[in-house]
Amino acid sequence: MADQQDPRNDDKKIVNMSDSEREEDEFLPRRELLDQIDEAIEAEDTERLNALLEPMHAADIADIIEQLHGSERTAFLQLYSDRIDGEILSEIDEAIREEVLEFLPRDVLADAVREMDSDDVVDLIEDLDEPERAEILAALDDSDRAAVQQSLAYPEHSAGRLMQSETVTAPEHWSVGETIDFLRSEDWLPEQFYHIILVDPRRHPIGYVALGRLLASRREVPLKDLCEDSFRTVSAYAEEGDVAYAFNQYHLISAPVVDADDRLVGVITIDDAMYVLDEEHEEDILRLAGVGEDSAITDTALETMRQRLPWLMVNLVTAILASLVIAVFETTIQQIVALAVLMPIVASMGGNAGTQTLTVAVRALATKSLTGSNVWRVVKREAIVGLMNGLAFAIVMSVVAWFWFDGVSLGAVIGIAMIVNLTVAALAGILIPLAMEKAGADPALASGTFVTTVTDVVGFFAFLGLASAVLK
Amino acid sequence: MADQQDPRNDDKKIVNMSDSEREEDEFLPRRELLDQIDEAIEAEDTERLNALLEPMHAADIADIIEQLHGSERTAFLQLYSDRIDGEILSEIDEAIREEVLEFLPRDVLADAVREMDSDDVVDLIEDLDEPERAEILAALDDSDRAAVQQSLAYPEHSAGRLMQSETVTAPEHWSVGETIDFLRSEDWLPEQFYHIILVDPRRHPIGYVALGRLLASRREVPLKDLCEDSFRTVSAYAEEGDVAYAFNQYHLISAPVVDADDRLVGVITIDDAMYVLDEEHEEDILRLAGVGEDSAITDTALETMRQRLPWLMVNLVTAILASLVIAVFETTIQQIVALAVLMPIVASMGGNAGTQTLTVAVRALATKSLTGSNVWRVVKREAIVGLMNGLAFAIVMSVVAWFWFDGVSLGAVIGIAMIVNLTVAALAGILIPLAMEKAGADPALASGTFVTTVTDVVGFFAFLGLASAVLK
Repeated sequence: MADQQDPRNDDKKIVNMSDSEREEDEFLPRRELLDQIDEAIEAEDTERLNALLEPMHAADIADIIEQLHGSERTAFLQLYSDRIDGEILSEIDEAIREEVLEFLPRDVLADAVREMDSDDVVDLIEDLDEPERAEILAALDDSDRAAVQQSLAYPEHSAGRLMQSETVTAPEHWSVGETIDFLRSEDWLPEQFYHIILVDPRRHPIGYVALGRLLASRREVPLKDLCEDSFRTVSAYAEEGDVAYAFNQYHLISAPVVDADDRLVGVITIDDAMYVLDEEHEEDILRLAGVGEDSAITDTALETMRQRLPWLMVNLVTAILASLVIAVFETTIQQIVALAVLMPIVASMGGNAGTQTLTVAVRALATKSLTGSNVWRVVKREAIVGLMNGLAFAIVMSVVAWFWFDGVSLGAVIGIAMIVNLTVAALAGILIPLAMEKAGADPALASGTFVTTVTDVVGFFAFLGLASAVLK
Repeated sequence: MADQQDPRNDDKKIVNMSDSEREEDEFLPRRELLDQIDEAIEAEDTERLNALLEPMHAADIADIIEQLHGSERTAFLQLYSDRIDGEILSEIDEAIREEVLEFLPRDVLADAVREMDSDDVVDLIEDLDEPERAEILAALDDSDRAAVQQSLAYPEHSAGRLMQSETVTAPEHWSVGETIDFLRSEDWLPEQFYHIILVDPRRHPIGYVALGRLLASRREVPLKDLCEDSFRTVSAYAEEGDVAYAFNQYHLISAPVVDADDRLVGVITIDDAMYVLDEEHEEDILRLAGVGEDSAITDTALETMRQRLPWLMVNLVTAILASLVIAVFETTIQQIVALAVLMPIVASMGGNAGTQTLTVAVRALATKSLTGSNVWRVVKREAIVGLMNGLAFAIVMSVVAWFWFDGVSLGAVIGIAMIVNLTVAALAGILIPLAMEKAGADPALASGTFVTTVTDVVGFFAFLGLASAVLK
């Protein structure tokens, strides 16, 4: 890399794509560093460990803690626990947070939570049991505690849980100069804020001013003249997924949160929205694969097994269902054993085609691009695609079956079964998630199992049923 | 909703979760509105259409254009084309952008691109053919054109393509007062900026100051004292996915982009990073399902078929491969037809277990949480989970097979086959994506096909092979 020699940028330059040897990912603590950390843990060398972690970002330290193995992690926490601050704590994955909390000396924990923003404290304690929760609340200042408790009063996964209570507001009649003087006189301001929220005397937000515009305007300009054109408030009861969608759709950087009386109670910033968006994606992808959405790379084998077993159990039941269909045609199979050879092909093609349609439908629903106005057009499109793909593969498989088993009628049977199954797969792939959405369930959650059950049952039934009618 | 009466908030309040009748999603243009738009299009009533769209956000107007059907969209564009501005244009999905561009009168297009930020212009023209590209470039001011051409000189999907060239900088020796005076005197500033970037005389960025801190500080304070602790520059050659990861990992709001000589060439803001993150997720999920990542809800049936057919073709080849394994055991199946009934269960369970592991592995690789330091531990964990799940389902299926077909040895055979296949499925599910990553390929792209091929082949072979050895 051109500037590798420049010590100033050595740590902080983001990976250069032109660099030919890109294998070592530069975002990650380098392999050697990890080895050195391992060594320091093994030698119980606190000083060395502190020196190694000193220059690192809290998020990277949290990643290291997550990647350590059970006993290593314990050893690490024993050496490093009194250095864990609010920033590191809020970066640590939920899955191991309780474990980390147990190792923290009470005064370290108290210091850590006192320096956290209210939204991070809420995120930290909302899953804790009562005694731990009470202990952390007790460590907070009165005003912070009130803010956290106010947030916790809103439903889980609501904007009220996501917001930080720290807001920067100004009366609607202020000028730029008054606002700047006020900001300069405040000894406490949130670490990150991007807008001044204008409020009326009853704390109803009525607009906001981007800091860039404030800075570029003369002191006498009234704030009102600088308000952003598009201004949206978020209800504290809004679902966090909807909030994330709005940030993404309208390119929001921050949005004021209001209570049921439309009074300002907090603000949500884009990094919170980005986090939620990331989590929702993760959930979708894991649910589609039949993996519990709480799975983490830090889980033990037993935890992992416990998450996956129920989904495999459901799959077993549906697989047995499909086998029952096969069992109906046992005699036919015994007469024409080629059917046993070919039948998984029909089922497999149906399953794949159904999964393709399903995935597209689930994503379109998640991004709100499949709506009342285009739903029937998309259903029609999928049905046509299913039929056309069915025709294409009917031709291919008829020829394959004909040559393989030297049977023209067998070729015709598998061809027709293919058309039927791929058309049904397409319809199941779009209609099942739509029905789940309509019923208020997450389309990603159970559709996969439903869709492949349909394609297996229909595939086996169409192929074997036709065969027993035609070929006997 | 409590404040539905308040006209001020009617349009702009984000959906309230406490609202019991949440079916009508309030983010979307209401159904009636869409119907009214349809009517206006049909009546060719330009005035009515303009009135309906007037209060809407550009992103929502773009969504409506995307959701309209072929001929409807043509009719819409004929009525509305001279109202399409830069904001709407940059919101329109790539899939239909060329179609929209064709309808724009040349002067409208020129006005639209002139008001766009340089990064949006780059995004708009990077996929266009030469004549359209030249036409748009010709419409730009000299300085904007230079900025766009500079961006286009960087590789596709690089930070250089993502950045906007408009930056707000200050010499490192300036004070707060000098900076504010400068900002007030500038008649042109980017619409959104969150930091002042400090540069040395050679335009090397050396730190940045958040606008909030600038506003809260007295005029005489030197900018240097206000610099953020953590400061990262992005190489213009960095891969956009890595940039998005860094924004997410380090909670960046904006990051300066530097060229090979470490000089400032632009800035990337969090909304760009959020967009990239969203796209990468989408790609992962679609690739895992064997759907071309360029698929859009606006695609026609023919386009959709063209995207999906190749993946189904690959699946057909692997399904035939699995059938060849079955064909080896034709005689055994003819003797014990129960094998034909039960064999899809073994294959299906393996396929599902493999997909579970695969999905977790692909996500862990994408989020950089599966790294050198924990990879063998995760492989071991997956193998153990596969073995344990195999044992669990071996017991269940042995009993089922025993009762169903009244055969103890058949039960034993399916049990052993289940253990073998679920263990192999787990190993394939983790090792194949790891190998693809190592080889520089996207693990999401082809792993699904490989993994299910392995589980089908191993499943059929283990079950039928054992049966032919034991049961004859």
